[in-house]
Amino acid sequence: MKHPIITLLTDFGTKDHYVASMKGTILNINPKCTLVDITHHVSPHDITEGAFILANAYSSFPKGTIHLSVIDPGVGSPRAPILLVATNYFFIGPDNGLFTFALRKEKVRKVIVLNNPKYFLSHRSTTFHGRDFFAPVAAHLSLGVKPEAFGPILDSWIEIDFENPKMRGRALIGRILHIDAFGNLISNIDGQNLFNHVREDSFVVRVGERSIQGLKKTYWEGKKNEPMALIGSGGFLEVSVKEGNAQKVLKVKRGDRITVEIS
Amino acid sequence: MKHPIITLLTDFGTKDHYVASMKGTILNINPKCTLVDITHHVSPHDITEGAFILANAYSSFPKGTIHLSVIDPGVGSPRAPILLVATNYFFIGPDNGLFTFALRKEKVRKVIVLNNPKYFLSHRSTTFHGRDFFAPVAAHLSLGVKPEAFGPILDSWIEIDFENPKMRGRALIGRILHIDAFGNLISNIDGQNLFNHVREDSFVVRVGERSIQGLKKTYWEGKKNEPMALIGSGGFLEVSVKEGNAQKVLKVKRGDRITVEIS
Amino acid sequence: MKHPIITLLTDFGTKDHYVASMKGTILNINPKCTLVDITHHVSPHDITEGAFILANAYSSFPKGTIHLSVIDPGVGSPRAPILLVATNYFFIGPDNGLFTFALRKEKVRKVIVLNNPKYFLSHRSTTFHGRDFFAPVAAHLSLGVKPEAFGPILDSWIEIDFENPKMRGRALIGRILHIDAFGNLISNIDGQNLFNHVREDSFVVRVGERSIQGLKKTYWEGKKNEPMALIGSGGFLEVSVKEGNAQKVLKVKRGDRITVEIS
Repeated sequence: MKHPIITLLTDFGTKDHYVASMKGTILNINPKCTLVDITHHVSPHDITEGAFILANAYSSFPKGTIHLSVIDPGVGSPRAPILLVATNYFFIGPDNGLFTFALRKEKVRKVIVLNNPKYFLSHRSTTFHGRDFFAPVAAHLSLGVKPEAFGPILDSWIEIDFENPKMRGRALIGRILHIDAFGNLISNIDGQNLFNHVREDSFVVRVGERSIQGLKKTYWEGKKNEPMALIGSGGFLEVSVKEGNAQKVLKVKRGDRITVEIS
Repeated sequence: MKHPIITLLTDFGTKDHYVASMKGTILNINPKCTLVDITHHVSPHDITEGAFILANAYSSFPKGTIHLSVIDPGVGSPRAPILLVATNYFFIGPDNGLFTFALRKEKVRKVIVLNNPKYFLSHRSTTFHGRDFFAPVAAHLSLGVKPEAFGPILDSWIEIDFENPKMRGRALIGRILHIDAFGNLISNIDGQNLFNHVREDSFVVRVGERSIQGLKKTYWEGKKNEPMALIGSGGFLEVSVKEGNAQKVLKVKRGDRITVEIS
Repeated sequence: MKHPIITLLTDFGTKDHYVASMKGTILNINPKCTLVDITHHVSPHDITEGAFILANAYSSFPKGTIHLSVIDPGVGSPRAPILLVATNYFFIGPDNGLFTFALRKEKVRKVIVLNNPKYFLSHRSTTFHGRDFFAPVAAHLSLGVKPEAFGPILDSWIEIDFENPKMRGRALIGRILHIDAFGNLISNIDGQNLFNHVREDSFVVRVGERSIQGLKKTYWEGKKNEPMALIGSGGFLEVSVKEGNAQKVLKVKRGDRITVEIS
C-alpha cells in the first residue's frame, strides 16, 4: 500500500482517551498511515446505527482503505474479532453484524478470525479490544502483512437480523433507519427498488400523521416548513423539511413506520 | 503544491457519514493531501456563524491552503458553486455569503463558477453537493489543476447583508456576533477601529443589564464572576467573566446589543 | 524526528475556531507533521480531568511524540508556559498541574520555561496563548529545535494537589476520578496496588448506595443492568453496568466516594 488509509468508526465519543489511544497505537506501528474519523458518536452499543453510517461512508474512500469499526457491546464475550477482505476494502472489528449493510454492496473474498497474538499489543487489557487487538491488526495490515497471517479462515460472519420493507397490498411498509443532524428522516426503502414498483408522481408517503404527495429532487423544492419526500444521497427514501427539521415537525423517532402508498 | 492542505468547515455535525464521505472523496483523488477540520458544528444553515468562524481560522494556515466550506441551505437552488482565488488562499463553497468576513481581509484575484463536470463525481446526487461537487474540485485543485479549468469567470460574489456597528451620538452600537464554548461574548466591534474613536479607559460597555468600565488585557485580570471587556484573539471587543461563563451571568444571546458609551 | 507527531488536548470544544487556529499555526511552521486530537471536550478549565485523560492516552503514541495540552484558566496570569522533556515524550503547556498524572509514569529529564520570543508568533494576542505561544513552540520542536533554545531551565513544576486513596481500618477510601461516555465510573484506586492489599474475591466495593461483591474480568460478565467492579483499561478500579450506564443506575457524580472494604 503506497498511501495506506485507516478509517475509524466507534461509539467511544470524543471526550475520553479511547479514540486517541487507538490512533497512538496505530501510529506507533505505522507512523506513515493516514487516519480518518468516520464518526465516534454512534449511540452507545447501537450496532445497527453504526452499520448504517459505515455503509454510507466506506465506498467514498480509495480502494484498499482499511475500515476499522468498533461498536462492541460484547467485548469479553465469545464474539469473534474478524478481518473481512472484500473486493475493494478491508473491514476490521467484532463479528456482531456491524458490517451487514456495507457487505450488501461489497463482495467478500475472505473472513479471518484474529487470533495470532503476534499482532496484538503485548500488554493487553480485558476491556479495551479497540486499542489492544483491533488497532494493532489494522496497523500491521496497513504495513502489508497478509490477511492469512492474522488467523484462520472462517466460513461465515454474523448479519444483523434486519427487517426489510414489506409490500402489504398496495402499500410498501418501511421504517425510519436514521435521523441525521438536520432532522432528515432516512428510511430503509431503497430508491432504486421503489421505482421498479411505481412512477415518481403516483404515490403518497405517510409518516407520523402526515401524508406527502410525490417526490422532490432537492431540499430546495417545496414550501418552507412543509415536509417533502426525496431520494437522499445514500439512495434511500428520505423525508425532509425545507429550512426546517423534519424530526421536530413530524414528531417521530428512529424505528417509526414510514409507508409508501401506491395510488 | 508541495504539501497541499484542505480545511473543512460545515454544519454537518460529526455523527453522520457526511464529513467522512467528503474526506474519502478527496483522498480518493489526492491521497497525499492533508485534511484539517475547522469545525462541523456550525448551527444548521447558519451562514453568518460559519462566515465568522472561517474568518477567524483561515489565516493561521500556510499560504496556498484550500478552504472548503459548505453551509448550504440552498443546495439545489440556483445559487452558484464557486472557487474564490485570493492572494494567499483558495476558498471553495456555495456563493451565499459564507466568505464575506474572510474576504474583508483578503484580496480576491478571481472568482470561478464551478461548472465543468469533468471535475465532479460521475455519479452525482441532487442533495449532497459537498461530496459530489465541492470535495472533488478541492482535491483536483490540490493536485495543481488551474482555477480556470473548473469553469468561467464571474464578476462578483454574494456578501452577507451584515449590519456594521453604528455611532449614535456618543455611543457605538454593535451586536453579539458569536458566543464561544467558554461563554465569551464576541461582538462585531473591531478593536482597532474602537481605539480610533476613544482612549482605552474612557468608555463604558453595556450588555444585558450590566455596565463594564474600561478594558482589561487578559481573562486573568478583574474579579472572579465579574464581567469584563477586552479585545479578543480575533481582534474584536469581547465580554468575558473570569473563571465563569459570561453568557450565563449576563443572560444574553447571539444578536443581542452591545454598546460602547464614550465618557 | 522522521515522522513527527503532535497531539492536542484542550478544553476549547470543536465548534469555535480555536483548535483549527492552533493546527494552522503548526502546519504553517512544519507542514509535514502529523496532528492527532486527544480531546477538545475537557470540561472548561478542568485541569484534573485534562490531566487524567492525558495520562491515559499519551503512552500509546510513538516515542518522541510531542503532547501539546492547553487547559489554561490562568492565561495572562504569571503561570509559566513550559516544555517538559521526559524520557520518552515531550509535554508542552501551562505549568498548572496538567501533566501531574502522566509524570507519575514518566521520568522527567528537563523542564524549560518558554520565554524566547523567536519561537512565538510575531503578532501575539494576550488571550490566546495556545495559538500564539504553545503551538509555534511545538512546531519548532518537531522541526528539531533543541529544547534549551526555547528558554532557561526550571528546577520544578507544579503538581495538582490530588487526594490519593486512603486506608481507614479495613477500608480503602477513594473517589470517582472520571465518568466516561458509557457511564463507567473510573476511580483513583490503582488496580495493581489494590491486589497488594487483598485477594480478588475477598472484598466489597461500595459506591452510591450499592455494594458490589468481588471483581469481574470484562464488561460482558455479570447480569444485565447490575453494577459490577473490574480493573479498567487504564489500570484503575472501575464500576460498570452490563449493557447499561453505571452513572445513571447508581446516581453518582465525579468526586463521589468509592470504597473497597476488605472482608
